[in-house]
Amino acid sequence: MEVIFRPIGIIHSPFTSLEGMPIQPSSDASGPGFIEVFPEFSDGLKDLEGFSHIYILYHFHMVKSSRLTVTPFLDDAPHGIFATRAPSRPNPIGLSLVELVRLESNTLHVNRVDVLDNTPLLDIKPYVPQFEESANVRIGWLEKAKSRMNVRKSDDRFK
Amino acid sequence: MEVIFRPIGIIHSPFTSLEGMPIQPSSDASGPGFIEVFPEFSDGLKDLEGFSHIYILYHFHMVKSSRLTVTPFLDDAPHGIFATRAPSRPNPIGLSLVELVRLESNTLHVNRVDVLDNTPLLDIKPYVPQFEESANVRIGWLEKAKSRMNVRKSDDRFK
Repeated sequence: MEVIFRPIGIIHSPFTSLEGMPIQPSSDASGPGFIEVFPEFSDGLKDLEGFSHIYILYHFHMVKSSRLTVTPFLDDAPHGIFATRAPSRPNPIGLSLVELVRLESNTLHVNRVDVLDNTPLLDIKPYVPQFEESANVRIGWLEKAKSRMNVRKSDDRFK
Repeated sequence: MEVIFRPIGIIHSPFTSLEGMPIQPSSDASGPGFIEVFPEFSDGLKDLEGFSHIYILYHFHMVKSSRLTVTPFLDDAPHGIFATRAPSRPNPIGLSLVELVRLESNTLHVNRVDVLDNTPLLDIKPYVPQFEESANVRIGWLEKAKSRMNVRKSDDRFK
């Protein structure tokens, strides 16, 4: 069975190559960017600007093959791909929580972007912390990588 | 341009019809369920059980058509589809944060499921609050619906 999606827009960022990219939105290296939603989807943006943060779902379009175990940027041991945010997933869907700074017609000005320039956008969802209240969160292998989370940058390992 | 994905598993829940379903994971009505990851993806689950919460991405397979504005369960006014979590989206991708209770071979026992039984699973990502630290969150039109968030249930409007 196949599920077929079509991009609804394009994500623009300062990051034109995988090397040196921030590895997640809260990284010190993540930066401002803008998202162009194709005009035929403009009506879907109504009332979005009331939200300060949005999830963007996108296609990791530069990933050519998937792997089931990877050694992520924040560790030197291999982990199952589903226990990481690495892009080389069976279905290469990316998820980032970004800050929505301003909506200008069908262009979203955003902050904390950790996405490659020209990435195809698949969906936008409002971020509602109340939907995701979580107590006693454990973060597995990442626990010991905490101190490096916001400074570590990408390299080309997932090309 | 098309992006083609293939399910990596199936989500099982107590919810066999859209009517009466919880509308999001933190709802009082959300319940336990299990996720069957297809055996060929088992290796990708290594070390996942260190995480207490995971994002599941899935295909809203019962949605037959998309709408750009919808009147969501928590309001009586229409909003742009991207300012809601409603399933009838241009690309019907669902996102839920669920609690991972136990991993048993390639079966994930989860809690706080707000997904229809037999929903095709597209991806699993670890939940890492540190990746998504957000200050000064505003939640737009949902602000005035706060008190109803955890009790309101689904009906068949997005069939």
